[in-house]
Amino acid sequence: VTALDAGLLDPATTDAADLVGDAAVLAAMVDAEAALLAALAEEGAAPESAKDITADRLTDGPLDLAAIAAASRGSGNPVIPLLAELRRRSPAELRDVLHTGATSQDVLDTALLLVADRARQRIRDGLALVIDRLAELADTYRHTPAVARTLAQQAAPTTAGLRFAVLLDGVLRARTGIDELELPAQLGGSVGTLAVLADLLGPERAVAVREAYARRLGLATRPTVWHVERSAIAGLGAALAVLLGALGRIGLETAQGSREELGELSIDLPAGEGGSSAMPQKRNPVPAVLLVAAARRAPGLASTLLGAQLALDDRPPGDWHSEWQPLRELLRLALEATALAQTTAVALTVDAQRMREHLADTGGAVHAERAQWALVPVVGRARAAELVRDALATGDLLPALLRAVEADPRAAAAADRIRAVTAVGGPVGLSDTLIDAALDAARSSR
Amino acid sequence: VTALDAGLLDPATTDAADLVGDAAVLAAMVDAEAALLAALAEEGAAPESAKDITADRLTDGPLDLAAIAAASRGSGNPVIPLLAELRRRSPAELRDVLHTGATSQDVLDTALLLVADRARQRIRDGLALVIDRLAELADTYRHTPAVARTLAQQAAPTTAGLRFAVLLDGVLRARTGIDELELPAQLGGSVGTLAVLADLLGPERAVAVREAYARRLGLATRPTVWHVERSAIAGLGAALAVLLGALGRIGLETAQGSREELGELSIDLPAGEGGSSAMPQKRNPVPAVLLVAAARRAPGLASTLLGAQLALDDRPPGDWHSEWQPLRELLRLALEATALAQTTAVALTVDAQRMREHLADTGGAVHAERAQWALVPVVGRARAAELVRDALATGDLLPALLRAVEADPRAAAAADRIRAVTAVGGPVGLSDTLIDAALDAARSSR
Amino acid sequence: VTALDAGLLDPATTDAADLVGDAAVLAAMVDAEAALLAALAEEGAAPESAKDITADRLTDGPLDLAAIAAASRGSGNPVIPLLAELRRRSPAELRDVLHTGATSQDVLDTALLLVADRARQRIRDGLALVIDRLAELADTYRHTPAVARTLAQQAAPTTAGLRFAVLLDGVLRARTGIDELELPAQLGGSVGTLAVLADLLGPERAVAVREAYARRLGLATRPTVWHVERSAIAGLGAALAVLLGALGRIGLETAQGSREELGELSIDLPAGEGGSSAMPQKRNPVPAVLLVAAARRAPGLASTLLGAQLALDDRPPGDWHSEWQPLRELLRLALEATALAQTTAVALTVDAQRMREHLADTGGAVHAERAQWALVPVVGRARAAELVRDALATGDLLPALLRAVEADPRAAAAADRIRAVTAVGGPVGLSDTLIDAALDAARSSR
Amino acid sequence: VTALDAGLLDPATTDAADLVGDAAVLAAMVDAEAALLAALAEEGAAPESAKDITADRLTDGPLDLAAIAAASRGSGNPVIPLLAELRRRSPAELRDVLHTGATSQDVLDTALLLVADRARQRIRDGLALVIDRLAELADTYRHTPAVARTLAQQAAPTTAGLRFAVLLDGVLRARTGIDELELPAQLGGSVGTLAVLADLLGPERAVAVREAYARRLGLATRPTVWHVERSAIAGLGAALAVLLGALGRIGLETAQGSREELGELSIDLPAGEGGSSAMPQKRNPVPAVLLVAAARRAPGLASTLLGAQLALDDRPPGDWHSEWQPLRELLRLALEATALAQTTAVALTVDAQRMREHLADTGGAVHAERAQWALVPVVGRARAAELVRDALATGDLLPALLRAVEADPRAAAAADRIRAVTAVGGPVGLSDTLIDAALDAARSSR
Repeated sequence: VTALDAGLLDPATTDAADLVGDAAVLAAMVDAEAALLAALAEEGAAPESAKDITADRLTDGPLDLAAIAAASRGSGNPVIPLLAELRRRSPAELRDVLHTGATSQDVLDTALLLVADRARQRIRDGLALVIDRLAELADTYRHTPAVARTLAQQAAPTTAGLRFAVLLDGVLRARTGIDELELPAQLGGSVGTLAVLADLLGPERAVAVREAYARRLGLATRPTVWHVERSAIAGLGAALAVLLGALGRIGLETAQGSREELGELSIDLPAGEGGSSAMPQKRNPVPAVLLVAAARRAPGLASTLLGAQLALDDRPPGDWHSEWQPLRELLRLALEATALAQTTAVALTVDAQRMREHLADTGGAVHAERAQWALVPVVGRARAAELVRDALATGDLLPALLRAVEADPRAAAAADRIRAVTAVGGPVGLSDTLIDAALDAARSSR
Repeated sequence: VTALDAGLLDPATTDAADLVGDAAVLAAMVDAEAALLAALAEEGAAPESAKDITADRLTDGPLDLAAIAAASRGSGNPVIPLLAELRRRSPAELRDVLHTGATSQDVLDTALLLVADRARQRIRDGLALVIDRLAELADTYRHTPAVARTLAQQAAPTTAGLRFAVLLDGVLRARTGIDELELPAQLGGSVGTLAVLADLLGPERAVAVREAYARRLGLATRPTVWHVERSAIAGLGAALAVLLGALGRIGLETAQGSREELGELSIDLPAGEGGSSAMPQKRNPVPAVLLVAAARRAPGLASTLLGAQLALDDRPPGDWHSEWQPLRELLRLALEATALAQTTAVALTVDAQRMREHLADTGGAVHAERAQWALVPVVGRARAAELVRDALATGDLLPALLRAVEADPRAAAAADRIRAVTAVGGPVGLSDTLIDAALDAARSSR
Repeated sequence: VTALDAGLLDPATTDAADLVGDAAVLAAMVDAEAALLAALAEEGAAPESAKDITADRLTDGPLDLAAIAAASRGSGNPVIPLLAELRRRSPAELRDVLHTGATSQDVLDTALLLVADRARQRIRDGLALVIDRLAELADTYRHTPAVARTLAQQAAPTTAGLRFAVLLDGVLRARTGIDELELPAQLGGSVGTLAVLADLLGPERAVAVREAYARRLGLATRPTVWHVERSAIAGLGAALAVLLGALGRIGLETAQGSREELGELSIDLPAGEGGSSAMPQKRNPVPAVLLVAAARRAPGLASTLLGAQLALDDRPPGDWHSEWQPLRELLRLALEATALAQTTAVALTVDAQRMREHLADTGGAVHAERAQWALVPVVGRARAAELVRDALATGDLLPALLRAVEADPRAAAAADRIRAVTAVGGPVGLSDTLIDAALDAARSSR
Repeated sequence: VTALDAGLLDPATTDAADLVGDAAVLAAMVDAEAALLAALAEEGAAPESAKDITADRLTDGPLDLAAIAAASRGSGNPVIPLLAELRRRSPAELRDVLHTGATSQDVLDTALLLVADRARQRIRDGLALVIDRLAELADTYRHTPAVARTLAQQAAPTTAGLRFAVLLDGVLRARTGIDELELPAQLGGSVGTLAVLADLLGPERAVAVREAYARRLGLATRPTVWHVERSAIAGLGAALAVLLGALGRIGLETAQGSREELGELSIDLPAGEGGSSAMPQKRNPVPAVLLVAAARRAPGLASTLLGAQLALDDRPPGDWHSEWQPLRELLRLALEATALAQTTAVALTVDAQRMREHLADTGGAVHAERAQWALVPVVGRARAAELVRDALATGDLLPALLRAVEADPRAAAAADRIRAVTAVGGPVGLSDTLIDAALDAARSSR
């Protein structure tokens, strides 16, 4: 077996493979079998020695991942060849009791959620830094004036800090979504009835085995079997896609803001990174670009997981199998994106001067809305609109508007108000309040 | 303007249009403008009369939906033509103050979530019946033996009740997902700073307007503006897709079970329904088929919403616009699927006799696993497997196995145990426990 | 029945509804039934009068779309209620012979492809203008220097004309994809065997009926029945998504280029279009934004059609039903996007001055690659890279490089070459050749 | 670097890795660089020795895939570290000329299409066996009566052969779609102008280099550069998804037909395959199930490729990067599915007896349509429908109908006709004709 994917086509892969790669999944499958043995032992259905069985004792040395992968073709899943291997390698007294009451899907579902749970922990840790850095940026630049853009056009003043606060809010919400996921263990037996365990141990002790199994793995215990009720997987996929969207926005904004024509943001990459194979001057915002790429891949993968809910029978013919790779790929992308978001956020620098300059790009037209509303209470909406429209036509809104306003006795009272709301550098609406709300949320989420 | 979609290509549409159709969205947009007026009045920024403004007084007669739809082309969204219309129609003293501090996206985002909230209420009500009926089926058929199928093959005994309990579990979990969604109002002003409101009223009263606006609409208040932080929409889309998956499984199982060759389930349709244009004898399980169709459409729509999270700038150039139809379509499908699931669940009948017959299809081979495990404690796994394999080869598992077991002095002690675990009609593993767990969850979810 | 969708949430809809809206689909269903009658008459299996039966004579006045849509719930598709209606309304001598040998799916599949074929014709016509305009832009601006951007950074010189040529190439290729689609009629009878027609007419004449039916509708004749072989639909969906991608790029580039900070492109909208509900100065590039939105919706819709290929049995339980709306929606979006692309392309203006200015944004660094390659033949790659790196470090590439080159006896010979390849306004690589290739393709595609 | 994916979660992977795995992609990147060197040499822009440069001479021993993958993080793509490596390893006289005029995207786009082209060849070869076997099955079982099912219900007689012919038709059409794809080489230089090549060689020879490059790689020459015109990738993805759909249907039908309750199809797996980890009797139709799983994954992957068409600028910031893995994954799935379809088709056996038995499941009701149409010419549609309805109500259609018909003087003439069209085993409509059409297409496609 040649490795299909060693990261060549996913430049950010490196750190993810040890947590969600095939070896990690295989290890988690062994962990599931070990936890089942221990749980059986707790109920007297396995030898006492199984109570503290470790994966190492069970495998008695490294497994041959490639051989197991190759052998899985005949059975349609890797649990069957793994089990054959464990039956050869495990301590003799455990061989007959291995896998008691379980089915392949129990082991693979559990392993994948164990992998997900471990990835979630690293994602959570990684997001802490992203969150801290975005909070710092939101706070530092809370009074830095910038021009907001809507429908790709300059629109009205905002603050750089508020933009970071919105990015922060997205990451916080996505993290909450990940945190709140219930990641259950699976143990249903061949058809979800747990008949073998109940036959051997009676219903109460069979229930106790299920609970001990989940507890030992640190996964949630579900009162029901979810062989064909796949909302845990669908919901996990969706939450990862939401996270990838939130992190992707960091990349999207950074790449866009780092264009020479905007020049509001840049990322300081280490020497030797960001280069081009052709252009010597190039300093590409590589982590930002890769964040966007990761986010663009998430919806298609998540859609496969959502579709796999339509699972037929008591264990499904194909739908289940279609989940494995998209789920792992989403976990990988989420791990990668977390690392890329760290790099991006940490390396991000803000050019406050360029931001301020862009406020003047339109001859002050970006102040039109607030100037007009300063006039409305004094002269009514229609006249206010007329005054602003005429002043806009001059190409230099504010001087023209103030001239017209001061020349109009009914309007003159609004001149100071217009000056106040169009002054650059002052507070911008609820920007401070909104930033504080995001910072509060960040603090309380720790 | 010709209606593009009056339900011809979505046979289950009828009931959804009044809640999520264009007219309902337009009405919700008016509701948002009215709520803003009333919220402004609460803070003294609109005439006292605005406090109890109704949509009717604001529109002064029915709006011309087609004209507003047609006029939206120039502006790229329907709020601008609606606003022009409201400025013509609303009471004179409110015209200047209409839409104060708001932007189109505030009104449309709020309207769509208001529509979502109303749809959610009807979905919730509708699911109650589905849940009750599935709970009834799970309870009624808890001792009805059936053969479970895995990878499209008969596998081992289960109960009809457990199958319904798993369907029930899926619906309950999906409903919880819908219930827990936070559906926020949107009010951020042109660029998400609420500058105009803050200019006019100061920050505290501007905050108060936002809160009153959300409160009056019965939507959640978010501390932040979500013009480009779209997790509310992405999460709503995912939760609807999860619900459609759970309901789709009801259709999938029903359609499959109603095949003549299985004959385990059927749906009693009213006379005149389920017919074919060609075949006189046909009684198609139409609601089940339409449930599957609805569920198959959800992942693609949800993927568009997940992708729209990659929103650039302070209000996005296109990504936002791409959300409207997929979101509405998912709401429509969820409403339809709820109604179809009601029809299906209510009309579902179980043929316990056919279920029991299928247990014998394989000459008892479906009992092999439990019979083998009954032998393991007595003769060990290897010998148990051998005995079962040989008996399976006869094509009539149980008699052959019992003969062999009774003929083998070491194994004979297991004969009664084998008889017990393969007796059809007795308890099947934890089936009762799992059914009770689902019924408990159903009860406590009311 | 309330119309669900009259275009409120799809601002560009208006023109599409008459071609692909429910009324158009219903009319196409009648066309299919009429064509079948006529085809039967050709073979003597229907009265002579059926040979020139028209839709009008068959429906005897307008059909009640809403009633047919509502009645389709029981049967799961609209053909059955339509047929009941036609049996009431059609000339008496045709009633018994209506729909002979056909099934609902024959009529609906055919109707949708008839609608697709009609939409294709309008799309084709509409694209001609887009193609002409892009060709004109490519030709007009073939020598207009501009800076190319890669990974969101200024990279190297290009021409405005080449950019338009690439957009043109995309539209041409996508149009070819649409043109080459085989859009077949469907006539298979209840289970795809055409048994009824063969029973009544014998095999040869049954074949002749199928051919006449397709011929009369202007659709392709397939040797096989495609009730469950859905590549025609999947391929149509993919080709429409490819077209939407090509047109969406026009919107994406236009919206981006029209940012004030870039200022290279703009669209001149009619007065009153492009406005904001909040900001008086706003001139939003609305058609460009809506093009992007349309394109962002296509992949999810196409994925549903690709998935519907997994159709079970001889006519599928739900997969077929899941195709109808996504297919129609893709046709609608393609029609809309064609119209939006016309508006955008026609209204597009190029600011050659801003383009030229951006070439200087980086102190000439965008010339680094070509300058370096001018040195390679003279001093080798290593020394060339060193010279360019040092000159880049000064922030003003060309003067610094030329000084260094002229001061280095080994390198001096390259100075003129450097001047030549970095001169702005001269030919840029194969730009002319590539533009000509695209223009040739445009011409030969007429 | 740990391998992320060695096939553990994709049981059918094994054969695909050598053609589309990371090592194959890396080798294709080297092939692209070698072809460029040779093409340059043809035009005198590289040493004569480059004309027959091989990948081996260029790499001077095996490359360290893991190191290159790891190093790609800084540059965002693997070409840059590969190039650094090649500059170290290649013959001294070629180092300066390596990669002349090219950019990373040229090499990676070309490499991926080279990989696609090689995969296509193996897919093509593999499909030949699938096609032959399906043709054989269609021919062998052309007169085997079976009951067709629509909307999950028994509908009317068909033949087993016709079902295979429809599967065959799907594979043939999908193969044509793959065959007709134009897989172009990419060579545009840093920004798609080929400026460096034109500077060095003049336009004519630069064009000649592009052509030689494509020719040497066996890829298509495009008159234009497609750095941001991604229809080649989008179309490739769609064609692969269509193929996966066609092959998936083989799996879907096989898995369904192999259910014990249907028993019409089965697959004879080698001993030791298809087993369960829990149930001794199990013989799972593993290749069929994995075919379905592969097909279920395709639409989500294809949707990412369709979405990546929205590529900004002259080389895109992230959209391009999002293509690599989904494209490779689709190629892998297509290779796997081809192998699985071979296994399935070859191992497929038909139980003609069970097929025939199912025709009687409904008491002959599946003959209702044809019996009714036999009556229509004699007694009119209304009376025919009445007679059939009444006979259906007896639960035993044919005897009851024939009794009623013979008792009715007006209808009696139809009795023989009814007998003829309901006789099992005779020709079924155009089944023979349609089968022949598919067989002809298979023959002419060789």
